[in-house]
Parts: sequence; C-alpha cells; structure tokens
Amino acid sequence: MNDTRASVMEIAKRRGFYWKAYEIYGGLGGFYDYGPLGAWLKENILNIWKEEFVVKDGLLMLDGPNIGPEIMYIASGHAEKFTDYMVKCKKCGHVFRADELLKSYVENPEKLDKEGIKRAIKEHNVKCPDCGGDLSNPERFHLMFSTKVGLDKNAFLRPETAQGIFVNFPIMYRLNREKLPMGVAQIGKGFRNEISPRQGLLRLREFNMAEIELFIDPYQEPKLEGMENTMLTLLTREEKEIKISAMEAIERGIMAPYIAYYMAKIVRFLEKLGVDLNRVRFRQHFKEELAHYARDTWDCEILISSGWIEVIGIADRGDYDLRRHMTYSGRDLTALRRFKEPKKIKIRKMRARMEILGPMFKKNAGRIAEIIESMDYVEGDFEIELDGKIVKIPRDAYEVVVEEETIGGERFIPHVIEPSFGIDRLLYAILEHSYYERKESGYKVFKLPPRLAPIKAGVFPLMPKDNLDTLAKKILKNLRNAGIQSYYDDSGSIGRRYARADEIGVPFCITVDYQSLKDSTVTVRERDTARQKRVAVDSLGETIRKLVDEKISFEEL
Amino acid sequence: MNDTRASVMEIAKRRGFYWKAYEIYGGLGGFYDYGPLGAWLKENILNIWKEEFVVKDGLLMLDGPNIGPEIMYIASGHAEKFTDYMVKCKKCGHVFRADELLKSYVENPEKLDKEGIKRAIKEHNVKCPDCGGDLSNPERFHLMFSTKVGLDKNAFLRPETAQGIFVNFPIMYRLNREKLPMGVAQIGKGFRNEISPRQGLLRLREFNMAEIELFIDPYQEPKLEGMENTMLTLLTREEKEIKISAMEAIERGIMAPYIAYYMAKIVRFLEKLGVDLNRVRFRQHFKEELAHYARDTWDCEILISSGWIEVIGIADRGDYDLRRHMTYSGRDLTALRRFKEPKKIKIRKMRARMEILGPMFKKNAGRIAEIIESMDYVEGDFEIELDGKIVKIPRDAYEVVVEEETIGGERFIPHVIEPSFGIDRLLYAILEHSYYERKESGYKVFKLPPRLAPIKAGVFPLMPKDNLDTLAKKILKNLRNAGIQSYYDDSGSIGRRYARADEIGVPFCITVDYQSLKDSTVTVRERDTARQKRVAVDSLGETIRKLVDEKISFEEL
Repeated sequence: MNDTRASVMEIAKRRGFYWKAYEIYGGLGGFYDYGPLGAWLKENILNIWKEEFVVKDGLLMLDGPNIGPEIMYIASGHAEKFTDYMVKCKKCGHVFRADELLKSYVENPEKLDKEGIKRAIKEHNVKCPDCGGDLSNPERFHLMFSTKVGLDKNAFLRPETAQGIFVNFPIMYRLNREKLPMGVAQIGKGFRNEISPRQGLLRLREFNMAEIELFIDPYQEPKLEGMENTMLTLLTREEKEIKISAMEAIERGIMAPYIAYYMAKIVRFLEKLGVDLNRVRFRQHFKEELAHYARDTWDCEILISSGWIEVIGIADRGDYDLRRHMTYSGRDLTALRRFKEPKKIKIRKMRARMEILGPMFKKNAGRIAEIIESMDYVEGDFEIELDGKIVKIPRDAYEVVVEEETIGGERFIPHVIEPSFGIDRLLYAILEHSYYERKESGYKVFKLPPRLAPIKAGVFPLMPKDNLDTLAKKILKNLRNAGIQSYYDDSGSIGRRYARADEIGVPFCITVDYQSLKDSTVTVRERDTARQKRVAVDSLGETIRKLVDEKISFEEL
Repeated sequence: MNDTRASVMEIAKRRGFYWKAYEIYGGLGGFYDYGPLGAWLKENILNIWKEEFVVKDGLLMLDGPNIGPEIMYIASGHAEKFTDYMVKCKKCGHVFRADELLKSYVENPEKLDKEGIKRAIKEHNVKCPDCGGDLSNPERFHLMFSTKVGLDKNAFLRPETAQGIFVNFPIMYRLNREKLPMGVAQIGKGFRNEISPRQGLLRLREFNMAEIELFIDPYQEPKLEGMENTMLTLLTREEKEIKISAMEAIERGIMAPYIAYYMAKIVRFLEKLGVDLNRVRFRQHFKEELAHYARDTWDCEILISSGWIEVIGIADRGDYDLRRHMTYSGRDLTALRRFKEPKKIKIRKMRARMEILGPMFKKNAGRIAEIIESMDYVEGDFEIELDGKIVKIPRDAYEVVVEEETIGGERFIPHVIEPSFGIDRLLYAILEHSYYERKESGYKVFKLPPRLAPIKAGVFPLMPKDNLDTLAKKILKNLRNAGIQSYYDDSGSIGRRYARADEIGVPFCITVDYQSLKDSTVTVRERDTARQKRVAVDSLGETIRKLVDEKISFEEL
C-alpha cells in the first residue's frame, strides 16, 4: 500500500469519513459505513451531480425500490448472464474471481471465457494464493442477491438502478409529453454479491450509484448544448491514447454523439469536484468485455495511487432493454417518431360481407362485422370471441381491400445512452486528488472545494475563558441555525486546531480573540492559503455562505 | 375512498409524484416508485429534516449498508421477535395479518397474543374476507427479508436503520470526543416483509426512514434548548387527550425529558412542512403494543382523510440495544460518566506469593505472577493460560489485599432515545394537508411551502412566437443554471398553464409577454394568492431563490 492511499485510509477511519461496517462483529466483506464526514461528502457530491446533470439539463428524477421482481431480471438478462467466473481452492476452500486471479499472469483476463480460464490456470500453473492448493475448474457465480417477497415470490436486489427506469418508460414518456431525447436520472444503492470484494471503497457489495438513462431516437440530430469544444482524453479499443474535442470525436465517428456529450459534461463535473483532469481518461471496452446489454461502453477512469480505476461508465445500450421488457411484459414501450410531413401509406383492410354474415349469425351479424373491420389484416379462416364464446369466421365472410392512409409518424423503440456513476469510487478518488501535506509542517490537508467539504466552518475561542468561549458558542449556534455545518473546538493551541480542521478539509476557521470582544469581529482563516481576514460577527453567516457557494472569493472579502 | 384521498392519489399518479412500482409486470405488493415530483419532494423534506435535526443540534450523520449480518439481528432481538401474527385462509390460501383482520371486531387487536387471536376469531366467527373460508390458527410470520452474502453467509435487510448506529457506538463516541448526550442520525431505506402491505404509501415493504439515536446518560440533566414552551397535544396510555407545554409534561413526569424535547422539535418541523398542527397528536403506546426493545414509545400521529396515522415514533429504548450488542459481540460499548470530584473507592486486589509460585513454576513464575496481579479478583483455585497451555493456580499462591484507589468516573451503558421518522407517510400527509380546491374554479392546488415544492418555477411565453418563446427559453436556461428546478410550458391558455402548475404545487410562475420584449421584465405569479408582480429579467434567478428560501416574501417584492 503506497503512502497516499495509506494516509487517506488512516484519516478516513480516524476522523470519520468511512470504515468497514459491522466491525464489532468482525465485519462483513464488501460493506462499508460512511461516518459523519463521509456521509456529508457523499451528499455534497450528489447535490452537485443533481445540479449539473438533472436540473441544468431538465432531466426527470426517479426514485424506486431496491427490491425488484424476478421476471424483470429475467427480461433484463441479469438472471441468466449477470455472473462472474470463480475458482475454488480444493484445499482451503477459498473462492476467487478468475479474472482477478489471472491478472498477473495474462493480459486482459476479463476477455477469457471458461475454456480460456482453464487453459491459463494450467499453462501458468496458477495455485491458491492463500495456501498454494490446487484450483477447481472455473464456474459461473451469480452476482445478484436474492430474497423472497411475501411468502414465496422470488425477487432480487437491483444490481443497477437502470432496470427500474426502463420498466417505467411508458409513464416517464407520458410525463415528458412524449418528447425525446428524454433523460431519466436515479440515485440509489446497487448490490452485487462480488466473489472477492476489495478492501476500501473500490469494490463494494453494496454501493452508491447515480445513473442516467437517456432515451433517444437514433435518427434524431443530437443536441450538444455548448459541450462541443471540451477536450477529452480517449483510450480507444485499439489502445491508442488521443486528446480530442468532443465535436471532433463525434465527427470522426469514434463514439455515439451523446456519449461524447456526456464525456464532456463529466469532464466539467469532475473539475468542479476538484479531480485533477490530467489523471482522467475515457477507456473504450474491448468487445469481449462488453456487458450483455451493451453495444459500446466507455469507462471514465481516474488515476489514483494504485492505478487507473473505473469510476463512471457510459454505455450505449441500444434498444436492448426496452425491447426485452416489451417482449416479457407484453406492453408497448415504443415512442412516436413524428414525420416532418405526413406520409401516405397503403394498408390492407378487411371489409365484412353482410350478405354472408347476416344469414350465418342473424342478430349477432352486426357486432361481428364491427369486430372484423376493427381487426388487423389476417389470412384465411379465423376465430373471434363473442360473449365469451369462440366464433368461426370463414374466409368468404370478408373481403380484403387496399386503402391509402395518411400517417403523422411511426412507433419505434428508443435507444438508450447510459452514464452510470460509481459514487463510492468517485468519493475515494476525490479524497486522494485533494490530499496533500504542507511543505513546512508536514500537516495533512484535504483541499476539498468548499461546496464539497463536509464541514464548512470551525469555531475556535482563542482561550476557553474570558467570555471568548461564550461568544464562540453563540457564533456556532448562529451558523448552525443558518444551515451551515459547523463545529466548535477549544482544545489545544490554535495551530493544532487549524491542523485538525485541515485534516478533514474544513475550508474556513473562525477564531474568536480578545479583539472580538471589543469590536465584534473575528478572524476567518482560509484553508488553502492559511491567510486570515477579519470579518464582522453580524455578517459572518452570510459571508461563509457566499464563500462556500463561490459567490465571492476569499480575496474579495 | 374519500374525496381528498382519491384526488391526491389521482394527481400523484397522473402528474408524477408516485405510483405502484413494476406496473408493466403487474406490480409487486408494497413497492412504490417516486416519480420526478415525488423524488424532489422527498429530497426537500429530508433537506429540511437534516437542517432542523442534524445541523442545528450538531448531530453526527451515519450512512451505512442495508444488508447486515445475521449475528447483529440475533443480538438485536429481531431474528427472534420481529414477527407479526398471520392467519391463512384454508380455502383460498390468502394470508392476512391477524390484528388487521380483527380491527373491526375487537378494540386494540394489537394487544392480543396467540391465544387471544384464536379466541377472537372463534368468538366473532371471523372468516376469510376474500372467499368466506375458514381461517387457520395464527402463526408467527417473520418480517425481515433475508439473503446470502458470499457463498453462504446469512444476512438480513435492515428493518430499521437503528442497529447500524448501535454497532458503531464505540466509533461514534470516540468521534464525539467521548461526550454525551450524543445524537447520531441516519437516513435510508428500511425493509419489512409485511404480510398485507396497503395500497399507497402508508404501508410499504421498502420504505424511507430518517432516524436519530440519542445516546444519553440517564442521570445527566437534559438540555431542552428553547423547546420548553412548545405546546403538545398528548393522548396518554389512559386514552386521555391533554394539551400541555413540553416543560410541564416533563415536570409532571409524563415522559422522559428528551422525548418531550423531540416532540417539541417535531411540532416545529411539521409546521415548516405545512402540516396542520391541529391534526397532530402524540399517542402513547399501550404496554402490550411496545416493541421488544422499548420501555416507552410515543407515536406522532397525523390526521388524514382516512383517520389518524402513525408518522413518527419516539421510543425510549433504555440500554436494551447496547447491552445486547455488548453481550453478543464481547466488545465494550460503555461510556464514561465523569464524577464532579474524584472518588476514593476500596477494591480487592490479588498479590502473587512468590514463595509458592517460585518452586512450583520455576522460570515461568515471574510471568505467572504478572498475570495474576493484572487479574480482576477471583475466588479459590483458578486456571490461566500460558503459552497456549492451561496452568492451575492454587488458592495459596496468592493473597487478597484491599486497596484504596482514586477514580475520576465510572463506565455505564448509555440509554437511547430514538425519534424515528417514516418519510413516505410524512410525504403523503403533507400532500393531503396542502391540498385544496380553488373556490371559484374548482382547480386543484398543493399549497406546498416553496422550499418543499418539487419545481420552483414555471416559465411560460404568452404565445409560442414573436420571440416570446426565445426569451422564455433563455430565462429557463438561466434559472436552471442557477440550480433552480424549473420547466417550460407553452401549450394552452395561460390560465390553463397556471392551473397545471398549481396542481403540482409550483409556487412561482413566470410569464413572458409583449412588455417583456420592451422593458426586460416578466410577471411573477404567486401560487396561493394568484397575484402577479413584474420583476426584471436580470434579477429573476436571485429573486426566485430568495422567495424560495423565504429570505423575502412575495409582498416585499
């Protein structure tokens, strides 16, 4: 474990960003708690996400359940295909994810199928890393957590929030007044019963996601809304790294236009979060690596101390999901493509022949004629239902005519572009990228952007006496009543208190000193520059609020 | 179903507040989706909750997993006791919750035990409400959803967020610098496999909670922080309704002080959400109704069209949870009660007698003496472990001396006061209480407080032409870039558009008219008064923001 990673994880646990869940019971692999600081940091990330992706672009939010019915995951293909290959040690019984295990032996082990894994294990004589024992043949391991609803209904915990969006397509489409493109966003938990969850936030069994399903008409001109010139670093499937603008990438046909649009939005979003853009790239999936639903996928990867990690995936899911749910539910999940000009088309229609129907069906003949004429064209004899009874209609009871009709549009299954954010990994990357040690003192600092910082202000009386503490506590109360996350600290030297604040990324520290008692001003210290300015107590809440919202800069104070 | 309920549910579905989840697959009982409006409404409720309960009071947030290990729920008592009685129809096989079924036959059926239920069914000749068939004997039905983690570890979906807080007590206590009272707040999903989930948001199998565990020293003087005079409506266990101030309720010993504190805070919170306080009361649980962990519980009930519903519970959990987790985990979950003055106490200590140990244990005698002297006092012969071997120590190898020690405090298990908010029910109650129909027109309105409203502004061009639409779209974009949830509507008359906005509680509607093109002002219409004022386009974003945050009132514009 390298230094940055070790420092971040040490502070994370000691100061309350995150830690292994259920520690008093020995933990549960792949489950983490966000402590007071991590919970606020996560929330602040999500708030900026909502502003950038949902509010600005006018997307629709959805907030659905974690538990979903089995049929939905049969339709989505997860019940069958959402698996990883695992191998088991024949000696100690430990279980490993095959591609993880083979990482140091072969390149791109995620490309291997069952036979390939078997071969690689044999060829490289791979043994159990825990005990050196022989390994079993690879087997598929199911990654969804299952449970029962009511007495006996099979259900799963969602492996992605996406399916909950797809099955709501008809409602969302109606709410969006039947217009495309339509973006639907969902924030929530995802669950994957990983074979070997990693330490830390990088591979959890229960994780935080923020997903967008953008439903588009693939024949409609995309809207890029000012994202054209944003520069992207791409690593294509051919393993070439190129730097290119979003517009150029589209023009050269490297990816679907809306993938490029979201890449550009992601770059701007990451910049706001304090991620170093020199350590951000978009890597295209190999064909063998694509999920069962994806036509193309690009991972937004961020370089952290342990290497490049996938943080956001942008997948072109085509019409896979809606088409499958249409088949399995029998419901109409299409959209209407309006023609610029109405089209004339020829259709075959059925006309009832009353001269045949009349004698055959007597008083029911009229109703039967109505049914026949409302039907789509069929051939030969057929059956209809009338008052719960089957009625046979012979071919000579109707004739077929060809009519011309004018239609304004046609139904089609929308395609889906899906940017999917792994919030836990993003949070971890932000921590690493914002971490540094002060040159002189070696003190540790998270230079989190103020809007992200879990706690906005620390309030310190120079001494916990002489009414300095009374005033400081009053200030604390006023800040909190103004909705500003603040805390009070009166222990140790002011320098020590600043250092403690820096270590959790508090952007502004307020010190109440003896001058405060005379002129009702306090010092405000800015974290990154360590500079101080005096601010009137009366305007403190407003000042901190403006600083945090970046309405004013510290220089302008 | 009464009128208000029917109207709210109809609008909820048609306009996108919430609806039954997985409809295209026939739904899944007890699971709902929040649509675009509901998702924002829920989030706005939670934001106010965090401000009022977490930020203002300096509570610690926690954000843990939904899945928890079996041992934790054995310790918490849920594995054994978290059940409801169900009865099954012998004819049609339908399953019913016993107390629900007996509601119309006996008073307070939740008080009945197994025998009581059996007797009541017989006495009142209760049959299956669906087919009239005979009912089975009552059986306990387990309310937790279970799953497996990894290959075979039993785990449950949390029925409350509380346990995740209790097991983190040692970490949180350290983060809080070992001070009590300490409040820890958690927002998230709860899961209960209800036997008979109800239609709508009132009894879900997966629901939204916001919980606080306030860890207190029961001997410490409570801090009421300005909540003393808030008036409470109480329905005591004796079924007497009284109106009383929080302070008086405490003085008369009606409930624990912190229960009264939270009642007062809840009253103020509900007022902010637009809940009618005349339809709010706190009902004390009957003894038989108390959960297995509770010493006392008060439900905050809100009167909606279908009667009183429990929305928030405030439970005195005593030291039940921490004590149980201490036992099951073997870990120290106590806090330190510091004495005002150090106390002198006499303790019995063991002194090794080297004259016995030396000859007996030779070169190990020293190490054994050390172990003996570090032990708590025991009686008679005993065994210790040395280098993995059991060593018998006879009574004559040590003597017992009485020593005086000065101690600064004592360890104790904190008690817990738990306010637990059911967010879905709260959201529904807010919708009902804010719903009305305009007198003249009959148009439907949700008079949601602006901060709660899912959408803050509608932007309407008087006509979708003459550049009115261009300006309106520019305004929309600016509002969205300022982080204000807004939408555009150019269809139908302005009156119709106002009505559509009222129906989803949009507090401010902006109309772009021909005057706008001349003087760059627009009209802003306030929902509740339907009055309009002209506002400069340039300051629109700021004005709407201030109106929403209640920094200025519409009159002051």
